Amino acid sequence: MAAHLPVDPVALTADLIRCASVTPDEGGALVLLEGVLAAAGFACTRVDRGGISNLYARWGVAGANKSFGFNGHTDVVPVGDLAAWTRDPFGAEVVDGWMYGRGATDMKSGVAAFAAAAVDFVRQTPPDGAVILAITGDEEADALDGTVALLDWMASNGERMTHCLVGEPTCPNEMGEMMKIGRRGSMTCYFTAVGVQGHSAYPHRAKNPMSALVGLMARLEAEPLDQGTAHFDASTLAITTIDCGNKATNVIPAKGFATVNIRFNDAHSGASLTAWLQGHAAAVQAATGVEISMRVTISGESFLTPPGDFSALVAKAVQAETGRVPEYSTSGGTSDARFVKDHCPVVEFGLVGKTMHQVDERVEVAQIHALKAIYTRILRDYFA
Amino acid sequence: MAAHLPVDPVALTADLIRCASVTPDEGGALVLLEGVLAAAGFACTRVDRGGISNLYARWGVAGANKSFGFNGHTDVVPVGDLAAWTRDPFGAEVVDGWMYGRGATDMKSGVAAFAAAAVDFVRQTPPDGAVILAITGDEEADALDGTVALLDWMASNGERMTHCLVGEPTCPNEMGEMMKIGRRGSMTCYFTAVGVQGHSAYPHRAKNPMSALVGLMARLEAEPLDQGTAHFDASTLAITTIDCGNKATNVIPAKGFATVNIRFNDAHSGASLTAWLQGHAAAVQAATGVEISMRVTISGESFLTPPGDFSALVAKAVQAETGRVPEYSTSGGTSDARFVKDHCPVVEFGLVGKTMHQVDERVEVAQIHALKAIYTRILRDYFA
Repeated sequence: MAAHLPVDPVALTADLIRCASVTPDEGGALVLLEGVLAAAGFACTRVDRGGISNLYARWGVAGANKSFGFNGHTDVVPVGDLAAWTRDPFGAEVVDGWMYGRGATDMKSGVAAFAAAAVDFVRQTPPDGAVILAITGDEEADALDGTVALLDWMASNGERMTHCLVGEPTCPNEMGEMMKIGRRGSMTCYFTAVGVQGHSAYPHRAKNPMSALVGLMARLEAEPLDQGTAHFDASTLAITTIDCGNKATNVIPAKGFATVNIRFNDAHSGASLTAWLQGHAAAVQAATGVEISMRVTISGESFLTPPGDFSALVAKAVQAETGRVPEYSTSGGTSDARFVKDHCPVVEFGLVGKTMHQVDERVEVAQIHALKAIYTRILRDYFA
Repeated sequence: MAAHLPVDPVALTADLIRCASVTPDEGGALVLLEGVLAAAGFACTRVDRGGISNLYARWGVAGANKSFGFNGHTDVVPVGDLAAWTRDPFGAEVVDGWMYGRGATDMKSGVAAFAAAAVDFVRQTPPDGAVILAITGDEEADALDGTVALLDWMASNGERMTHCLVGEPTCPNEMGEMMKIGRRGSMTCYFTAVGVQGHSAYPHRAKNPMSALVGLMARLEAEPLDQGTAHFDASTLAITTIDCGNKATNVIPAKGFATVNIRFNDAHSGASLTAWLQGHAAAVQAATGVEISMRVTISGESFLTPPGDFSALVAKAVQAETGRVPEYSTSGGTSDARFVKDHCPVVEFGLVGKTMHQVDERVEVAQIHALKAIYTRILRDYFA
């Protein structure tokens, strides 16, 4: 076998940034990766669904007892205010040690780092098992034709990961300070209150939907949902909208609307919270005579990969490369780990995500190298 | 002096309905009345202000010790859904004893009845004093260039009323059942809450203006404003709007708005309620860190003409003509009596107002005759 130079994760990041893969456009990013991975002996399958492109790449045999998976995405959020960028968002320009571009941190650098680590690793020390890369082009939008499509396809085709690492940015400020071992769940409830319109001079003849919504919102905010659990912060509830669109100040409107968003820990589930919301809505309806209906969307249940050998292995690799012991965290929004957790233990580790989704998104070039080194060490320790 | 036929209040109502005097248009209504009144010896003055036409008519000498005044308006609200009318809204068509048209009850019939009563009365039994008609073309809108303009002009010109009757509809269902001896006050408060926008996953990093408004509204509705007073129902507070216009369910908005309308009795004033609202707003601001500002408009203070000789005189006339003892009420919205009360004792009596402001507004023809008879008896008794 010919000797190969190591894959440069910085050059690969730059190449990926130059692909304008704004969701749902593939933009050439997956084609680029497929080329790199196939050349190193990865069996590559394009798993496309609903107009979304995804890439499944496996080195080794399907269904191996040790099948380490990386999960990530190449799609990026839109540029936003282009005029506010000081660099070309698809230029990958490096200035003073920082590479600029949409996706620089979220998460083309992460994908480049684990692809480079995986390629070098299987070339240098072919493991007894499989190394899998499940890379999606649909993380920033609904995500239903992305990682979910990959996991569905894997289940139908005898493919599996025994453990998975999601390469999203996880560090608030310093490289190595935090990894995620779970995430809070997220749900949104849309309330509609239908009362009886009336003149504001005679409120007893009307049924005021706004009073009912005030009562309902006050009940929902009256007590904290919990005080936090072993590995989770306290759950939160936020009123994000209340509206009626009534133009007349002497008229009590017939209808009002309110929305709450809940981020919940493992003391709750989408179902238990839906029942809790329904109970309060029913109580307010009974007390006021205002009909309250609700629609719930659950973006993800909370989940936890309990601390153990796998998280310790990742933490040890991070510490060895950065000198920092990463905190086991479950903070933040949701990620595709919420889908992966139904299939195998999953943790998340990536670089500092400060500028993600912002104008002048950028990544410290040194962090890309560090991330590749961490991922390489994880692979080495996993298959040791 | 030549003998005159009595003025037919039904024909006069019909003539007035045929004038399309939708606020602020005079529509010929005041010109018509001026003709009728001037012919009977009333000194007529057009008191126009701010593009609004008003008519001041006095029989007898200015400043007389007994100067009985009628107050009313000839302007009407818009037709609304013309297609829903079964009769021409400016046609004054009579069907089965009912006359149809915009202003049929509110309040061209009232103006016609008191004009007819006044003309016949001064012709038949010229009183020792003055009979005054203060008729405005601006009651349905802001009313600031209507009765207020007339009262301002009167004060500047040595004109006065010693007692005044406003001819608005006052009877909920049956002719004669109710008169008004006062009205509740009305005010509207517009709240703006300015917090700090944030992601709904981290509500502790934001300051939620909607939560602050929910807290404020809940405080305002927590206790009744009062239990009613000797002559007034309990004051009422109605939330008429809450809005934020936030499109994103994962974002806590920076700003929210709410409006409350308060109808208050003589236990309060606009100033006392403004202070009460400010107190609650300040408390919520202190508790939440959300800045709450407010703007108050006071449409009218509450007022009362305490029951006495004048109300008894009116009630007796109503009873004599209808067989019903009218209830002394302070219910309902505001009327121009809120301006008159600063100048002289004022009560209100008129016919059944059921269809006012509605499609197919109509008046029972017999009620117009009855109303003229009542007004005539009031004049007779007043000057007896």
